[in-house]
Parts: sequence; C-alpha cells; structure tokens
Amino acid sequence: MTPHIDRDTSLCISLAERPSNHGVRFHNWLYNELGLNYIYKAIAPEDITAAIAGIRGLGIRGAGVSMPYKQEVIPLIDELDPSAARINAVNTIVNNDGELTGYNTDLLAVSSLLKSHAVSPDLSVAVRGSGGMAHAVVAALAEHGLRGTVVARNHVTGTSLAKAHEWEYSTLVPEGTQFLVNVTPLGMYGPDEDVQAFSDEEIAAAQIVMDAVAYPVETPLIRAARAAGTETITGQEIIALQAAEQFVLYTGVRPSEEDIRRAEDYASAEH
Amino acid sequence: MTPHIDRDTSLCISLAERPSNHGVRFHNWLYNELGLNYIYKAIAPEDITAAIAGIRGLGIRGAGVSMPYKQEVIPLIDELDPSAARINAVNTIVNNDGELTGYNTDLLAVSSLLKSHAVSPDLSVAVRGSGGMAHAVVAALAEHGLRGTVVARNHVTGTSLAKAHEWEYSTLVPEGTQFLVNVTPLGMYGPDEDVQAFSDEEIAAAQIVMDAVAYPVETPLIRAARAAGTETITGQEIIALQAAEQFVLYTGVRPSEEDIRRAEDYASAEH
Repeated sequence: MTPHIDRDTSLCISLAERPSNHGVRFHNWLYNELGLNYIYKAIAPEDITAAIAGIRGLGIRGAGVSMPYKQEVIPLIDELDPSAARINAVNTIVNNDGELTGYNTDLLAVSSLLKSHAVSPDLSVAVRGSGGMAHAVVAALAEHGLRGTVVARNHVTGTSLAKAHEWEYSTLVPEGTQFLVNVTPLGMYGPDEDVQAFSDEEIAAAQIVMDAVAYPVETPLIRAARAAGTETITGQEIIALQAAEQFVLYTGVRPSEEDIRRAEDYASAEH
Repeated sequence: MTPHIDRDTSLCISLAERPSNHGVRFHNWLYNELGLNYIYKAIAPEDITAAIAGIRGLGIRGAGVSMPYKQEVIPLIDELDPSAARINAVNTIVNNDGELTGYNTDLLAVSSLLKSHAVSPDLSVAVRGSGGMAHAVVAALAEHGLRGTVVARNHVTGTSLAKAHEWEYSTLVPEGTQFLVNVTPLGMYGPDEDVQAFSDEEIAAAQIVMDAVAYPVETPLIRAARAAGTETITGQEIIALQAAEQFVLYTGVRPSEEDIRRAEDYASAEH
C-alpha cells in the first residue's frame, strides 16, 4: 500500500552512528494507529553539525539522538530542557519553528517508572555501570530521593558519577542492597549475553531489580529476579516509555499505555 | 497500514514555496508499486541555502526544485547536467555521496515527447510564454531542430528568450503556424481557466498542439485541438514524464510506460 504522505506530513528522524529500527517501527506504528500525519526515518549522518543544520533547513519536527552524538549536539542547539541539562546529554531534539530544544527522555522515562512502580525513596540502591545511560538512570534515581552506590570497574567514571549525586562509589555491590540496577551491557545480545549482572545472593536480598538492557527483554538478570519472585523493571519498559515521551514531544499526543505496549511489541519484533 | 520505513530507506524530497501533492503521490506510488525502499516528502523551506545544507547533512537522495528556487539553487550545488546548464534552471537535484548535481527534467521530458510523437523538425512553431518553463520548452524544441517564434506580451523576456535560440519574437502568432505551444497559465485552474491559449483559426491551421498546463488535463486549448482532430501533447504527459525522469535519476530504475501512466493517474487524482 502506498504510504500516506502529503505536503503537510511532518517528518521526524533519528541520528545515530548505527541506527536501529526500534524508533522507526515504534513511531511509525503509533502515527498510523493514532491517525497522525507524521513519518519517522532513521539517519546515519556523516557530520553531526551538518545534520543539525539539516533539521533546521528542512523543517524536521524532531530527532532522536543516539551514541555518539548525545553530548556533541549540545552546542548546536538553542536550548536545553532540565532533563538534558542535568546530565549534559540530549537524546531528543524538538524543533519549534526553528528553535531547537534538547531533552533527555531516558531520564524522563526512568523517573516515570519509579513513580508508576511506587519505588520507595528509602531503599538502598546499587547501580552497576557508569556510562552515558548510567548518568540518566542515576540522575532519575537521585531525583526520586534515592541514595546509593555506583558500582563500576572504571574508577574514574564511577567516582565522577557518584560524586555528582553525593553517592558512594565501589567496585562491589554493598551487602543487603534493596534495589539493584544494571546499566552495563551484561546480559545484552552479544559477547556478554549469558552474564547475570547481579548474583543470585544479591537478588535474593533485593526487593526490586531494574535492568536497562532491552534486548533481550528476558536478560539473565530479569529471569533470575522473576524466578526469585522479586519485582522487576525491564529495559523494554524503559525503551518503550522513553520512545513514548519522544512521541508526546513531537506530536503533542499522549498514547495510552495499551498503545505504547502494542507499539513496543511491534518495534521489538524486528530491531 | 504502517508504512514500510526502515533504517535503509532512502529519502527524497521536493522544495517549493507552495508544495503540490503531485510529486509526493507520483513518487510514493511508484516506490511502492516497484518495491523500492524509498519515501518522498514535500517541503516548503524557509531558507533555500539551509535546505540545500539539509540535503547534504541528512543524506537526502534527491530533491525536486520548484519556483522560486530553480535559479537560486545553482550556486549551492556542485555540478550542472547539460539539461540544467543550457537554460540555467534546475528542477532536480541528485545527491551522490554528498556531490550534488542539478538536472532539468522538464527539458528532458519535452525532448523525449518530441521524439515519441515523431514531431518533424521542419514545422514552423510558435511558443506562447516567456517564463521559466518556456525556457525549458524552447530549449527542447530548438534542440529538436525546430525554429520559430516566441509569442509574449513581455517584450523584454520574450526578446531575450527568442534571441537565445535565434528565434523570432512577436506579440502575435504568425499566420499558418504548424505547431502551437502554450507555456502560459492560460487555461489553468484559476482566473484564466476559461481562456483558450490559441484561437480556433490558429488551431485549424496547425498540425500539432502542445499545452504545458497540466491542471486541468483538458484545458480549453486541448479540448479545442481534439475537437479539430489535431494531434496533442498535454501538460499531463509533460508533468508525468518529467517526474518519471526524476524517478530514474533517484532510483536508477526506469518504470514502464504503463507504470508511469498509472502513477500519474494516482498523482493527479488529488493534487
């Protein structure tokens, strides 16, 4: 079937070194389902400065921003939303009549999930990882009132992330941690797909486990937590909700939870 | 149905002050019909320099160029095909790995129609009009070996166009002209839609009539020529073929005549 595109169609894009199909499938499915005159296209730019100029020059409505451009785009846009300013990383650009504002919907999504899962701010938390996504996750956790420990092999990035939020830094998970969060590639499709990010003993002591890894949905960590009867927040929940927050920013329309779930099912069927 | 778009989809656009839906419908219909992973989107840029930067920055495969940008884009691109260089007007840009080449598929389409209609280069011809499209048409006619008269109310542009091809200039159609060509808005939807670009007497004397007006397909001129049993080349044939030439430049695939006809039927159903 010829896709519905006309002169009034709004165009959204993603900018990534190696684009996945998740955003393309998630957004286009929802545009169609909700009858919105938008299309979404993934782009691997050669030059991020030229790509941002392209957003302005062609009136692109919005852009997802992936590695390695999340910091690089900051001097190229006009304004930062607090979600992006707080962690100095943009994953979403919205173009309002040529005025480009950067957001971080990873942070917004984790914040929202902490609320919807009614996570107590009194839990002790350990976050494994200290990369870009870990910054978004720790910021959301700290904003939720949680204090805890950054667990990372990289002393420099681990200490720096911990200090930014007055958290502790360690190479080990503190005994009796109540909320375990993985933001490393452990358990992700690839060389570490069989690695469980926290031990069975750590999981047994915890009340809730969050994994930022979205592929597969059932990581070793999530499987072990479910087997132990521990509450989970999955990487798929995070990726779906961050995409949904982008969708709201681009279209002004908030999809229902059911629509988000169905869009995510469609998106993750082929990523 | 969710349109098929993935990370490998090529994006083509059009740049116009007031975009029509013709290109969007023509190209997207053919992409779908021929199973090509392309989409086409019309854009009304605020700043043509920024828009051309956008073609480079976002790796847009090709762009149709309409009024008032056909000359303005020339200093912004890298190379001119002879079709565009000859009349100093670009209606199509092709992006080969960042190298932008300008073409004029109006000229290519008219040239091709003169051949397929087996128009004799010995006919006397009168072209009414001296605007941008008239330059493309007269260049194609002259290249086909035809000599004739530019008929225009505007003495300056009419004389200039005539001189460029060593044609005559007149405010009147020379008596006994054998090939009549309209490149004015006479007969086009709008204030002049009831105006017949050439008189019944002029039509009676002619062997062939060409009208560059595509909307409506049945202009008063085309209707009168058909009623007189005179051969016609319609604006719809020109617009379909110039779009088809763009399609070939963007995709490397030449659609069949039947496919072009069907794409044009779809495109002109809602413009």
